[in-house]
Formats: sequence, C-alpha cells, structure tokens
Amino acid sequence: MNRAIAPDVSFEPEFVARLTTLFEELIVFNRTLGLKIDEIAATGVAAHIEMRPELIGHFTHRRLHGGVISASLDAMGGIAVMAAIGARHMSESIDARMARFGKLGTIDLRVDYLRPGLGQRFSARAEVMRLGSRVASTRMEFLDAEGRLLSMGSAAYMVS
Amino acid sequence: MNRAIAPDVSFEPEFVARLTTLFEELIVFNRTLGLKIDEIAATGVAAHIEMRPELIGHFTHRRLHGGVISASLDAMGGIAVMAAIGARHMSESIDARMARFGKLGTIDLRVDYLRPGLGQRFSARAEVMRLGSRVASTRMEFLDAEGRLLSMGSAAYMVS
Amino acid sequence: MNRAIAPDVSFEPEFVARLTTLFEELIVFNRTLGLKIDEIAATGVAAHIEMRPELIGHFTHRRLHGGVISASLDAMGGIAVMAAIGARHMSESIDARMARFGKLGTIDLRVDYLRPGLGQRFSARAEVMRLGSRVASTRMEFLDAEGRLLSMGSAAYMVS
Amino acid sequence: MNRAIAPDVSFEPEFVARLTTLFEELIVFNRTLGLKIDEIAATGVAAHIEMRPELIGHFTHRRLHGGVISASLDAMGGIAVMAAIGARHMSESIDARMARFGKLGTIDLRVDYLRPGLGQRFSARAEVMRLGSRVASTRMEFLDAEGRLLSMGSAAYMVS
Repeated sequence: MNRAIAPDVSFEPEFVARLTTLFEELIVFNRTLGLKIDEIAATGVAAHIEMRPELIGHFTHRRLHGGVISASLDAMGGIAVMAAIGARHMSESIDARMARFGKLGTIDLRVDYLRPGLGQRFSARAEVMRLGSRVASTRMEFLDAEGRLLSMGSAAYMVS
Repeated sequence: MNRAIAPDVSFEPEFVARLTTLFEELIVFNRTLGLKIDEIAATGVAAHIEMRPELIGHFTHRRLHGGVISASLDAMGGIAVMAAIGARHMSESIDARMARFGKLGTIDLRVDYLRPGLGQRFSARAEVMRLGSRVASTRMEFLDAEGRLLSMGSAAYMVS
Repeated sequence: MNRAIAPDVSFEPEFVARLTTLFEELIVFNRTLGLKIDEIAATGVAAHIEMRPELIGHFTHRRLHGGVISASLDAMGGIAVMAAIGARHMSESIDARMARFGKLGTIDLRVDYLRPGLGQRFSARAEVMRLGSRVASTRMEFLDAEGRLLSMGSAAYMVS
Repeated sequence: MNRAIAPDVSFEPEFVARLTTLFEELIVFNRTLGLKIDEIAATGVAAHIEMRPELIGHFTHRRLHGGVISASLDAMGGIAVMAAIGARHMSESIDARMARFGKLGTIDLRVDYLRPGLGQRFSARAEVMRLGSRVASTRMEFLDAEGRLLSMGSAAYMVS
C-alpha cells in the first residue's frame, strides 16, 4: 500500500493487540482455520497458517483445500482494510477506531489458484490498493514456506 | 445446465454414493465445514450446511463467515463438474469415471456477497455452464433457509 | 431481478427514452461499440450489438474481441442498476431520477468466456441481484443470435 | 514474472516485430482502441493508449470508459502469455512460436476499477504469474500518465 493511501503510521501496541484478538479469536472461523497474525501495519498485513488434517482437500493428495485459501485471503483483505482505516484515523481513540470496523463487509472476492497447497506452513499477506470513503479494494497473496506464490486474490469491501 | 452440455442421464445409485462419499468424507475440509449432499444430477448439484459456532464470522453478529461461503461454493462447482463429466462418460465403468476426477482443479473463483449469512441452515447449488475438454465453467448460488440468495459465484476448473 | 429488489413498475416512455439516449449516445464508447437498447425494465435490461470489422479479435477468426464482450457486459450491468434505482424512486421526477445516475461507478467486473463470439448479431442482458443504498450487484449474459450463452459476467457498482 | 516461469531470454527483433503487428494490427479491436506496444519481454509486457473522444464513458465527465480498460487489460494479459510461451520455446523457429498463439483464449477476467480514467495518455502492463501446459494466469495494471494505478486485473488463459 503506498503512502498516498495511508500514512505509514506506527500503531500503538494496544491497537495491534486488539486487532490481533479480533482477527484470531473473535472472528471464530479464523480460529477454526488457525490463522495467526505476523504483522499489522498501515502498509500491509501478514499472517500464517499451519497445515492440519481438517484443512486438507482430497485426503490422498494432502493438499490444503482451496476453500482454506479463499477464506484466508478474504480474511486477510479484511484486516488490511481495518489497518488502513486505523491509520487514517490515528487522531481518534483506539475504541473509536475499533468501532469503525463493525461496518466492514466483503462485497466480492476473486481467487486465482496457481499451484497446489503443499507443505506444513503457509503465509498470507494483503495490501490495500485503494481506500475510499465507502469501498476499499485489496490485493492478497498466499505463499508456501519457501515463499512461492500459490494463490493470488483481489477483493472489494464496504467500509462504512 | 442445459442438455447441450450433458445428457440428462440417470446415474447409478453406486455412482451417486461414491461421489457423495468423496465430497462429504474424502475431501476432508468439506467435512470440517459440514457440507451434506442433497442431489447429484447431470443437470446440477445441491447440498446444505448447518450453522455451527466454528463457522461464525464475528461472534457478536452470529453470521456465517464469508470464507465458509466461498469454500462451499468452490466445492459445489467442483462436484457439479464431476457430475457433468460423469454424465458425458456413462459408457465407462464407475471406476473409470471416478478416476477422471483426480485431475480436477480449481483455476479461479469469484464470489459476490449479497446478504449476510443469517440462519440455522443454508443451501448451496451449482450448475455447469460449459464443459470443455480442458476447462469447465460453473455458476453457483448460496441460499438461506427461506431460499433468499445470499451469495453467488462463478468458477473455472481444469478438467484434464 | 425479483420484486423484493425493485417493484415491477411501468416506466414512463420519457424515462425509457432518456435512459436509452444516455446509454446509446452520451456514453460515447457504447456508441463506438454499437450497443442498442432492446428493453429497459425494472426487472432487467436487454440490448444487442451488430458484428462490425472494428470489433473483431484476430482477423483470421472473425470472432468478436473479448474486450467488446467485457465492455458490453459492464455497460449492461450499469444500465440495469440505473433501471432498478429508477424503479425504487418512481415518486421522484424524471429529472431527479436521472440526476441519481451521475454517481454510478463500476467497482469491479468478472467475465467468463464460454464460447467464441461468432455470428452477425449478439444480444446482452443484465439483472440486478441486490440493490443496496451504496452498492449494487448484477449478473449479465452475452448471447449469440441463436440464444446460446457465449459469456457470463457479474459486477459490483457504487450507487451513491 | 519470475525466472521460474520463463527464462529471461532476449527475443529476436523479428519476433518482437511480429508480436507487435499481431497485437496492434491483426487483432482489429486493439487497433480500434489504439493500443500501442512499448515493451515485449519474457518478464512482462507494456503498452500505452491515447485518450480519444470515441473512448469516453459519459461525455460530461471525459473519463475513459471502463470497457476500454477491461478490453485493454484482457489484451495485455494475452500478449504477456504469448511472450512467456515464446520464451519457453526459444529453440523453435519464430514461425513455430507464432503458430502456438492460435490456440490462446481468455477463460475469464476480473477487473477492479480503483480511480477514474482521467488524462490524455494511459499505460498498461501485464505479467504472467503462472504458465502451465494448459492454463496461464496473469496480473495486469492500468495506469495514468503520472503512474497512478487506475485499475488492476487478473485473468486466466487457455494456452493449448
């Protein structure tokens, strides 16, 4: 995300902690997936996910199910938008910024599956390409442990 | 799916049973989601899913997480393609038809989220819009218990 | 478009004429494409386009360029949203309804190309799947003269 | 496009000239749009387009029609795939490589419209994210004269 979209602010540790809890715990299906935050910055977000038997597509291939990838990319785009909104409203209290996220909703999502999801650990990242007053657009990537691009996505979110 | 795409054949009960097992059990993440087949026909497929706490998006809203919907629609498109391939190759043994599905893979997926996923039970259906020798295209819908359209999707699959 | 989205109103001939002029003349690139309105109703819109040499993809194949199809489907989704907005605000003057369309903008578009664009005349149609206060979602189809589905699309539009 | 996808070869001037002619002249609708190649490399392609009255969306806003953008991005993804195929088959004659492009077809396309298309000149670029034996996936961008990202896209192409 370039600086035109959001200033490259330093978030307070409490804000990062609350966004992390929201993402990892309160959004229950993210916990079902096992998504764990690695970084929340105004310029982008990163997370990882460990392979577990419940996340497998066909059991003989031991690949991550495509639905795990699409769900993860949707979730990543969403938290990237939250971070960008937070960065735009740093003059507000943390409570006020957190309250802004209640209106967030995914409008639509596209995922391109490039390579099979093989491995023990995957990472995902997202950046906001445009943050408008009503709609935000994001781009997301899903990578294996060696940093190979497995899937890419883009999504639009309603922000107010 | 119109008849130009696949003849409106009657599948053997064994074929339907094996596809159902593949979908509900062997594709492990479908089991994690709780997807259950209602119908497998050459002209389209249908399934349902019960709300469970693990599938919730934000815990205060009690809505189905968007990722559950995208994963379900991807899975539905896939099994619709399998049914269409099966219908096109009815002269083959069931084993031979089942063996064809090993090559199936999602190329890409789009999901439009129209309305929030509220309720205790949801249904999903898919039809094949084109079945080529290499690529198939599908259209999918996700509905609430009253039949309201909550999400719609389209996807492309590699078939050989 | 079901009646929950927009009442199945009868538009005044003047409203239909003004929307048609907007679509065929004022949106200049639609004129470059040669898109002509066949029907504007609250429940959906239809148009057609004649093959012309300038619209061809590769000159040896004589097929309609995919970009003509994507541009047509984007345009069709847009006018379907205009019709739905118009239907929702029938108590307003025609001028007031027309003024609402200045804010319309495409958020994103997906097109699936199913079959090559062969023939002398094509038709396109669109319906609104959801009309919200901020975002509308549409589904579109592009057909050949025999009514075969050549391409399908979906799009999201900002409406205010 | 990283080197894992295609070696960073140097194309013969004749190959570049023939691809340019194919893109700018033989694909007739590209000529209607006025797309002009700036670079064809194994690692990506670039082109530009001048604003002209025929390409305008609504005549009062003087913006490029979204359909011009979607058509341009589709065309750019296509030529990026051609370049990547060409790079993979450098041991073949130029004629043999050119013959491979006859089978290319767009499977589907997504375009995100981020900012209005204002200005006198625009540029577009594309890179191949994966080149398989049957399907290729690309990512595209559409920029204004100052290099601002106006639209982004992704597409899948059938390659054989």
